[in-house]
This record gives sequence, structure tokens and C-alpha cells, in this order.
Amino acid sequence: MYRTDTASMPSSFLLPVISSTHDATLSAALTAAINNKTKPLGSLGMLETLARQIGLIQQTVQPNIVAPALIVCAGDHGVVEENISAYPQSVTWQMVENFLAGGAAINVFARQNHCALYIVDAGVNHDFGVREGLLDRKVAYGTRNFAQEAAMTAEQCALAMQHGAELLAGVQGNVVGFGEMGIGNTTAAAAIMHVMTQLPVAECVGAGTGLAPEGVLHKQRVIEAAVTRHAAESMEPLEVLATFGGFEIAMIAGAMLAAAERRMVLLIDGFIVTSALLVAARLQPAILDYCVFAHCSDEQGHRQMLAYLNVQPVLQMGLRLGEGTGSVLALPLLHASVNFLHEMATFDSAAVSNKGA
Amino acid sequence: MYRTDTASMPSSFLLPVISSTHDATLSAALTAAINNKTKPLGSLGMLETLARQIGLIQQTVQPNIVAPALIVCAGDHGVVEENISAYPQSVTWQMVENFLAGGAAINVFARQNHCALYIVDAGVNHDFGVREGLLDRKVAYGTRNFAQEAAMTAEQCALAMQHGAELLAGVQGNVVGFGEMGIGNTTAAAAIMHVMTQLPVAECVGAGTGLAPEGVLHKQRVIEAAVTRHAAESMEPLEVLATFGGFEIAMIAGAMLAAAERRMVLLIDGFIVTSALLVAARLQPAILDYCVFAHCSDEQGHRQMLAYLNVQPVLQMGLRLGEGTGSVLALPLLHASVNFLHEMATFDSAAVSNKGA
Repeated sequence: MYRTDTASMPSSFLLPVISSTHDATLSAALTAAINNKTKPLGSLGMLETLARQIGLIQQTVQPNIVAPALIVCAGDHGVVEENISAYPQSVTWQMVENFLAGGAAINVFARQNHCALYIVDAGVNHDFGVREGLLDRKVAYGTRNFAQEAAMTAEQCALAMQHGAELLAGVQGNVVGFGEMGIGNTTAAAAIMHVMTQLPVAECVGAGTGLAPEGVLHKQRVIEAAVTRHAAESMEPLEVLATFGGFEIAMIAGAMLAAAERRMVLLIDGFIVTSALLVAARLQPAILDYCVFAHCSDEQGHRQMLAYLNVQPVLQMGLRLGEGTGSVLALPLLHASVNFLHEMATFDSAAVSNKGA
Repeated sequence: MYRTDTASMPSSFLLPVISSTHDATLSAALTAAINNKTKPLGSLGMLETLARQIGLIQQTVQPNIVAPALIVCAGDHGVVEENISAYPQSVTWQMVENFLAGGAAINVFARQNHCALYIVDAGVNHDFGVREGLLDRKVAYGTRNFAQEAAMTAEQCALAMQHGAELLAGVQGNVVGFGEMGIGNTTAAAAIMHVMTQLPVAECVGAGTGLAPEGVLHKQRVIEAAVTRHAAESMEPLEVLATFGGFEIAMIAGAMLAAAERRMVLLIDGFIVTSALLVAARLQPAILDYCVFAHCSDEQGHRQMLAYLNVQPVLQMGLRLGEGTGSVLALPLLHASVNFLHEMATFDSAAVSNKGA
């Protein structure tokens, strides 16, 4: 089985080449088109920013949104041995079953917003067998406990990223979001965040699925001890990912890099998905040009992540569910941003007097 | 013509009776239903708040959203004589033409989000004639200049409110939003805000459709002088509305009160629509139970209005276009709030372990 046959694993992940979307001429043309619409200058706020960004990504003054998709990767985390989650590990596979049955929040919102959903076993500690609607990309039955040893080997990390990039290649459409499921993964994400941003661990940890304050403190101590044990402060991004990450986080990072190479719009979800982006952006900073930040999560570290990246989220609704829910909920606003550019009249076409006329 | 025949005008607007939605038993049942869904407790943030509120409004644990509608009222303002807008008054009627032709922002977003649109001439300074798609409820050809005299008579104000209530009676569905168009109406709304909230005029005025700082200061001075001239600080809410308001603002206030009486969900838009609500809520405080605050506008006074009402907006996207655009953009999130309650599995039904299990 490839899952244990390290000989067949890639020794490293081949980084896609990502170009900046910077184009002063096109940007000016988009701004002119936006400003010509029958509305006060700048009055559509963030929708105007989105329209301009999507236009630059798609290299057109007539951007559009085609067949948005969400890739939900699930994986288990050895660090749950340290008692850092409010829910038992079995919830990971149970929630995957819930995704397959269509009963989770992400199913509801994807149906509502016409978003294609890909459910991926990135490394759940459970045998699902062959299942309709489940993409089997299991790297292993969960990561190792990073409080004791590296969560994954460099080869496992590269394999997870490679799977992510290959999954992405199968996605239709030009907008892709990422979701995750994995009991323990806010602990993994907080550790990644700490090493990538150098913010104190105390500012990176949060309640996750619902820890009490003493539980959050324990989680902080577990991460602090592990960071010291692994001498993580001086690590390269991929080492950080392998040491603390989850298979789902690595798979998402690989898919993100591949999506930006294909010039897709990347919808960035909450705390865990953004931790994958922190790694991807360190490897290829131009990826940020392709990212729309769907929401600011209620998980405390997420606001800091967004501040660190110096970006504005579309939604601020106190969500902290994961699964990619924030991304799918933001989709109608992406549609609105391209729709106004396509469909609104101009001052000339509607014979409306412009400012100062 | 009824427009000048004051004898046929109502001498006062008959206030609808609005009941509080408070119901401790139903609220507990809604919370239990929400908490049973397969997600961490509270993790859908504001969507959970919305689901509970809409359930209380509709008096059911299975709330739904049927045929949402937006009523856009347009009116002109005599105070434009004081040079308080970046655009000429003619833009009001030109934009009504744009609404009728389907080319304005509100048309685009209403089409996208399947929202019925009612366009109403509440008092535009223009003869449209009989036009398909335009509801003629013109009270007069614009208000008077409140810098010199009251914007409308008490009878005109009552008539505008009555028209609003009657319009509402013709609306299908159980969710209604309100939009407006009227060059000069941020000046009217700022004056209303000042008197209703007692906040300094300087904190109530903003750039409107795009005034430079000196224009904002001039607008502030015009309002301050008018407040003194009319001895407005001690006025009753309906006097404030008649003295400073617009026909579109009064019509919206009347429609809001009628909508809450019918136990509809009221989608509250930006600065001008919220100024109408400040008056309506002073008359009937229970109306606030029915209000969903769609967004926080970039018009500076709006954030203060929301703080004054102690409410949280759904969206914060820096919009300041008016027309009801923020309300229609928030609609998919209202749908999401009832959809998760209807469609998500429970911990039992999906056999997912609950917290601490």
C-alpha cells in the first residue's frame, strides 16, 4: 500500500510558479469601469475591491464566476492524546459520514449557494471503504502526536501537498474554497501560526470547538512545550508544516498553490485554512494576490492572522464552525461584485448626471 | 388633485399595534433546536441569532423566508437649495428611470437574490406620467427647504406614512426591506438623527454621495441653524419627521410600522432607512424585535445609529450607496440562517458524538 510504502512517496513537493496579478493598465481600466457605473464614487465599498481583484486575477475588465467549488479535507491529529479538544477524535470520521449524507452545515450552505463540494479523506483514523462521494487520499491514519515527535515525515507532508495539487487539477470552474474537518486541528493551526508569525502562543490559541479557559491554557502549554522540543523557531515553512500540521492542512496548502498557479480565485476560510495559507504564502508570496478572505472567524487567533497578512475579510459574523462554511457563505457577495460590473448602467447609458454636472 | 387637496389628507397617521416577540418558552425551544445541530455550540455565530429572532417573529421553531421584497421610495428635498449635495437634484428622477430600466445597483442585486422590487414615487420633483413598474404615491414635488420652513406639513407627513402602510399591505411574503433615493436625504436623515439621539450634529453628518470635508462642515452648519430655527430639540417624533424628513423617509417609517404589525421580518438598510426607524421605534419600541440590521454603512453617522440602538449589523462592507442595496445583499445570509435550522442533521440523527461524549 502506498500509504506505508515511503519509496513511492515524493521526496519533496514541486512548487508551482505563481505570478503576481499586478497590472497597472488593467487596474486603471477596471477602476474606470467601476467608477462609470451609476452610483456615488466608491459607494459599493468592498464589492468594488473584489471586482477589481477578480478582474486582475482573470486578466479582464469583464470578470465572471464560474462553477465555484469547495474542497473539504479531513484528517486526524495525534496531538489529541494531549487532551486538547472538547470533542473525541471519533467525531472526525462521524462528521465525514455527515458530509456524505448531506447533513452538515457545509452541505446546507453549498446547496443554497450552488457550490460544488469535494469531500476528501486526507488522513482520517477510520476505514471508510470505497464510498460514493468520498475521495480517498488518505496519507495515514492520522498524524503522530507533535507533543512527542513530528506530526508527519517530510515525505508524508509532500505527498499530502501533491494530492492537494492533483485534486485541484480535477476541479472545474474558476473559484475554489477550502474547508477542513479534524478534531485537534486548531491546536495544529495555532502552532503553525505561532512559528510563522512569531506572535506569542497565548495569542494564537483559542477555544476551538469549545474549550473552557483552563483547557485553552493547557493547549497553550502543550504547544509551547512542543515548540521548544522541536526547536521550531528557526524552521523552514515546510518543516513547520510537517512538524505541527495535519494531513488536511498540508493538502489544502498544496491545493492552494496549484489553484493560484491556475489563476483561480482562492476563497480563504477561517483559522485552520488560513494557517495553511501562512505556509503557502511564505513559499510563494504572490499567492496572496489570488486570495479573497471570506470571513473573520470567532476563533481568537484568526483576527490576528488577518492582521498579520494585512487583509480585510468579507464577512464578520462570529462563525467558528470550520468545514469551509464561511467561504461558501461569502459566495453571493463575490457574485454581486462581478454582477454589478456586468449589469449596472453607466452614467452615459442611463443618462444620469454625474457628480458636479 | 389629492396632492394639494389637504381636505382629503389624513390629519394623523393611525399607529399600528406592535407586540413584542418575547416568548421565553419558544426562545428556549429554538435554542435547543440550534444546539442540537451537528456543530460546536454557538459556532454559527450571528446566523444562530438570526434563526432565533426569525423564529420568534414567526412564532415557530421552523421559521422560513418567503418571497422577500424591497420597497424603494424616492423623494426630493427642498434643502438641496442650501447646496448640501455633491449631485444635482435631477439625479433623483434620473435614478428612478434607471430603476425602471433595470440598470441600477439595486436591480442587479435584487435579480441575483430573487427579491421582488417595488419602485415608489413618494415625492420626486418630476412628472413621470403613468409608468409600468412605478407606483405613484407622490405627496408633492419634493419637500420644502427645512433651512427656511418645515419640510412638510403634519398632514403631508401623515399621508406619506399612510401610503407606506398601504403599500406594505400589498406586499406578499414575510420579509421586507426598504430602500431610498433622494438627493439631499443624508442631510434630512442627519437632522432627524441628531434630534432623536441628541448626538452632536458633527457626529451625525457625513460625506453622503461624496462631499469634500468643507462640504460636510457646511452641511453641519445648515442643520445646526435649522435645529435652532425650529426649536427642534423638544419636538415629538412625528414633528421631527415632518420638519426635517423626506416623503420617502416618512413613507418608509409608515411601511415599517405596518410590517411589524404583520409580524414580518424587517430588513433595515443604511443611514436614511435607519433614520426612519429611529422615528418609528420612538413611536413603537417593540418594532425593534422585528428588525434585522443588514449592514453598517460607510456613512459615518450610521455606525453611531447602530450603537445607539445597541444592535449588530449582518454585513460590514463599507457600502454607502443607498437604494436598499445592503439589505438585498444580506438576504442570502438570512436564507442560510433558516436553512441550517431546517436542513442540518442533529447529533442523534447523524450519530455524531456530542461534546464530552
